[in-house]
Amino acid sequence: MATAGGEVTCVDFWANGFGMRARIALRELGVAFRYVEEDLRSGDRSELVRRMNPVHRSIPILIHGGRPVCGSVNILEYVDETWGNDGGPRLLPRDPLQRAHARFWADFVDQKVFSTQTRFLKSKGAEKEAAKEELLDQLRRLEEVLGDKTFLAGDEFGFLDAVLIPFSSMFHGYEQHGGFSLETECPSLMRWVRRCKERDSVKSVLPDEDEMYELHKKWYGISE
Amino acid sequence: MATAGGEVTCVDFWANGFGMRARIALRELGVAFRYVEEDLRSGDRSELVRRMNPVHRSIPILIHGGRPVCGSVNILEYVDETWGNDGGPRLLPRDPLQRAHARFWADFVDQKVFSTQTRFLKSKGAEKEAAKEELLDQLRRLEEVLGDKTFLAGDEFGFLDAVLIPFSSMFHGYEQHGGFSLETECPSLMRWVRRCKERDSVKSVLPDEDEMYELHKKWYGISE
Repeated sequence: MATAGGEVTCVDFWANGFGMRARIALRELGVAFRYVEEDLRSGDRSELVRRMNPVHRSIPILIHGGRPVCGSVNILEYVDETWGNDGGPRLLPRDPLQRAHARFWADFVDQKVFSTQTRFLKSKGAEKEAAKEELLDQLRRLEEVLGDKTFLAGDEFGFLDAVLIPFSSMFHGYEQHGGFSLETECPSLMRWVRRCKERDSVKSVLPDEDEMYELHKKWYGISE
Repeated sequence: MATAGGEVTCVDFWANGFGMRARIALRELGVAFRYVEEDLRSGDRSELVRRMNPVHRSIPILIHGGRPVCGSVNILEYVDETWGNDGGPRLLPRDPLQRAHARFWADFVDQKVFSTQTRFLKSKGAEKEAAKEELLDQLRRLEEVLGDKTFLAGDEFGFLDAVLIPFSSMFHGYEQHGGFSLETECPSLMRWVRRCKERDSVKSVLPDEDEMYELHKKWYGISE
């Protein structure tokens, strides 16, 4: 099969939360890969990105044996199907219902949390205040998903952890921007963040939180 | 496993293109299920929907042995993992790269085609004209994905066919609304539509195209 071998490349930008998922997943499953930085601060996309993802021209892109896989959740599924082991580490649970549960909450993060984060950072006045409350509600919902488990799907770090943990690199920014403490609002979610950050896969990928917030301030024209 | 057995129910509305996917997939894999109609024309969601999908209160919902799976693509993955057979019918291809390809284009349909359809139907003047061109471009892209294959992933009807074919129940509406002929614009995509409609799974689920367009005219306040 074309997917059985070949060099693995991940095209991404250091501050891209979606791409961090792919890089964390590759490290979790012990897949050696070449990292190619695509600077999103430049308006133009590289020739590589235009060729490998002509439809969206977006990153992350995983290139395996010369063939592209685009979209962060799609990449996680591909990484798990290609390198996940029944006996060893894998990202998604085996039970179909648990898999559906993980995918449901991944979609919640993508469709709800991400857009609420954007609205919270970009808007002003009452709209910002509403977005802040919504964002905190969404994080508390995710805290309920965690419950008293070690990771979001149980004892092992997996798919949904890889989906959500990159957002934590903006948590410091949320606190600065919104004037609240996530330790107070979501204490057990914050303990989960610290547990994730003990992992080599996560700590080698997540960027400095101050740099992340500084970049987002520039992107969204935030002056404080 | 909780997913190994139990009664199967699909909660949906006859004109819900997302839910049609789930009903087609269940029929393709020969899964007997009870259909519960949730009338989206009513503003209130039923107690069943509120209980089974408290986060989004949306349909379709697949209930298997009392446990809900929400979101149309999520349901297709679940149906395939639960009832798809290695030897018999299944929805997704086996090869991880082909699976990634199918999921990529499913996401394209959800993120691009659906929003463009909405914009095309709701907007006016130059914006409508632009949305029309965009919609036709997107359908032509999907026609390129089809190429000279019988179905979107090859010889067998599968996941991506189930994702896209419900949209064809609005094709007549597109033509009426935009004053174009899809036979002229995308002839091989239209041959694919006819091939899909020969299948019992598809023809028993797709609604009457005139009724679909009439409903959308009401929803979007279109008077012609």
